[in-house]
Amino acid sequence: MPPTAADHTAFAAQALSRVRAHSPLVQCLTNSVVTGFTANVLLALGASPAMVDIPGEAGPFAEVASGVLVNLGTPHAEQRSAMVEAAQAAGSAGTAWVLDPVAVGALPVRTALARELLELRPTVVRGNASEIIALAGAGGGGRGVDASDGVEAAGEAARRVADATGGVVAVSGPVDLITDGTRTARIANGDPLLTRVTGGGCALGAVMAAYAAVDEDRFASTVAAVTAYTVAAELAAKQAAGPGSFAVAFLDALAALRESDIAERAAVS
Amino acid sequence: MPPTAADHTAFAAQALSRVRAHSPLVQCLTNSVVTGFTANVLLALGASPAMVDIPGEAGPFAEVASGVLVNLGTPHAEQRSAMVEAAQAAGSAGTAWVLDPVAVGALPVRTALARELLELRPTVVRGNASEIIALAGAGGGGRGVDASDGVEAAGEAARRVADATGGVVAVSGPVDLITDGTRTARIANGDPLLTRVTGGGCALGAVMAAYAAVDEDRFASTVAAVTAYTVAAELAAKQAAGPGSFAVAFLDALAALRESDIAERAAVS
Amino acid sequence: MPPTAADHTAFAAQALSRVRAHSPLVQCLTNSVVTGFTANVLLALGASPAMVDIPGEAGPFAEVASGVLVNLGTPHAEQRSAMVEAAQAAGSAGTAWVLDPVAVGALPVRTALARELLELRPTVVRGNASEIIALAGAGGGGRGVDASDGVEAAGEAARRVADATGGVVAVSGPVDLITDGTRTARIANGDPLLTRVTGGGCALGAVMAAYAAVDEDRFASTVAAVTAYTVAAELAAKQAAGPGSFAVAFLDALAALRESDIAERAAVS
Repeated sequence: MPPTAADHTAFAAQALSRVRAHSPLVQCLTNSVVTGFTANVLLALGASPAMVDIPGEAGPFAEVASGVLVNLGTPHAEQRSAMVEAAQAAGSAGTAWVLDPVAVGALPVRTALARELLELRPTVVRGNASEIIALAGAGGGGRGVDASDGVEAAGEAARRVADATGGVVAVSGPVDLITDGTRTARIANGDPLLTRVTGGGCALGAVMAAYAAVDEDRFASTVAAVTAYTVAAELAAKQAAGPGSFAVAFLDALAALRESDIAERAAVS
Repeated sequence: MPPTAADHTAFAAQALSRVRAHSPLVQCLTNSVVTGFTANVLLALGASPAMVDIPGEAGPFAEVASGVLVNLGTPHAEQRSAMVEAAQAAGSAGTAWVLDPVAVGALPVRTALARELLELRPTVVRGNASEIIALAGAGGGGRGVDASDGVEAAGEAARRVADATGGVVAVSGPVDLITDGTRTARIANGDPLLTRVTGGGCALGAVMAAYAAVDEDRFASTVAAVTAYTVAAELAAKQAAGPGSFAVAFLDALAALRESDIAERAAVS
Repeated sequence: MPPTAADHTAFAAQALSRVRAHSPLVQCLTNSVVTGFTANVLLALGASPAMVDIPGEAGPFAEVASGVLVNLGTPHAEQRSAMVEAAQAAGSAGTAWVLDPVAVGALPVRTALARELLELRPTVVRGNASEIIALAGAGGGGRGVDASDGVEAAGEAARRVADATGGVVAVSGPVDLITDGTRTARIANGDPLLTRVTGGGCALGAVMAAYAAVDEDRFASTVAAVTAYTVAAELAAKQAAGPGSFAVAFLDALAALRESDIAERAAVS
């Protein structure tokens, strides 16, 4: 019998404690806009960030890190080399790694890089609907970016990417969709304020890497990561007067998050 | 009959709604210190930031962006190439672009770059008095940097730069001065706390790009951008216990800003 | 008679006023994660940050800056060149400079760079116990990194590094240890929340550079910097609901810090 929504919720609640107990070391090769926020999100949650993103160090570090995030937001030449190095080393070492193909399809340099990285079979791919659709096109031929596509419209593309990588794909939006090609979950938590803070999506990729580091079932760990993150966003929104105070309250909420918050609020289906 | 201060105030109030309605996509090639704050300012205001700053992507993106910011705060080699590429593409496509020549005159690499970019005729140039004076010297020969110069002392230099570019020049300070070479406006809003937060000036350049994207009259749009920004700073200062809480309150104030706040508080002359 | 703890406390209290009076210009060549927070810490304290970190500008600027920070957190190739250039220029000009050898010993590129920079005799070296132990090994042969080492275990390594550079070495931890090879001080202020905010340690390096700029006795100035910083952290922790609100309150506390706060709370021995 496949796991029910209640099973996922229980797993998500317990996974939070596992992340805090293990404090996974998450290597982030990410864009220059969100480095600080991403590190603060990981620290608030109880994980350990390390932004090791230069050639010659990125690979060796990926072998010892608990998890790796590769985010293509501002892919300068040196960082691109480091990303390939880290992804290859993570693959060889069996380290979970997350690919966030920011704006893939719309811009040529990162689109070529995303295609190269996809071949290295990321453990998890996280993007919005347009990015996942573009990625499926890049991998399977054809369809370009359509910024107006909703999460559900990306479901088929997500499954195609998951089939190609053998991993998990998460589509972010008002309702998040997560699939491993076979199983699919939807999470209806979150708050629009999360889209008014830069790095709201990018930092989630880092959290997915932290969760993937402490559980072998990466479909369940990705559902758990999104659930914790979006439940914390709901709790923060209640304290916030706008996007500035929301970002502050969100870090406080991640640090204060309890298993019971997840059990009570999770809207997983 | 030229527009009066009341006309500028009314325009500034309405321009805020236009920015929110259009949510202009603002491409930022900016310094590594302020990327996150700049993106958060744009998001709070209702615009969409995109930090596309690598060669091969910066040009194509500038053709489709609503506005572009080129800020010389930390001009690494790869970013310098991307800046020239973006400015050229913006010029060809008719995309409004803002040049913020941070510390020009005092440092050789960015001074040479600023001179090159000035030839590409930025829609708006934003700087403090010393930077605008240095820029006028670079363009027209002669006068160097003098960090002790006030905004009014830079008025003549600002007009010279505006004449050279055919665009608008904004001099930031306790009272902001904006000129297109013919018209000149002064805005006496703001709060000293804005100078105690890194990126207080840099993010204003991005806001000018957002405003320039939604109005053809770039003198009026720049006045409107400065007015909204500095009125929000006044409202935030009332909530703040220091520079940390000011930065948070400022983002909240930008998101909550109403046309009536601008109409009531604007000190344009 | 050597200075007593009371002497150090009195010095630390007065040094705060000197920093604010002189507003030292602190050049930071630091990692991409903490640039914004570091600049905000310096601004809150009353110093002036300038992130000049490209070749061709880093050296000339180090000659005119009041103090320089070289932090190895994300040492990209261009920044590595700029770091050597800045350190050499600071040395020649007699500008105080601080080396923060983030993760030295564990990663090859920065370890080689740290060794090269150590030869240039930094005025102050700041690190955690593992980094200082690794640095001593790199300089004197032998002992590797041990992340589990406490501050006291690094005391001998700190003295060895201080002997090699002729400067000051600060080991950060629950109790901070500062030595110039002859004198040793311990500071028991601070709050664990400081470790839950990214850049908590990195920004302290910048503050040490600001303090070193206004006092010739760099052992005393480093003690004063750590005291002010950790006392502000204690005051901020009283206002904080978590790491997000702590970071905000910390900037407010640095700006509001009074000599009397230091005199009353300093735990120097």
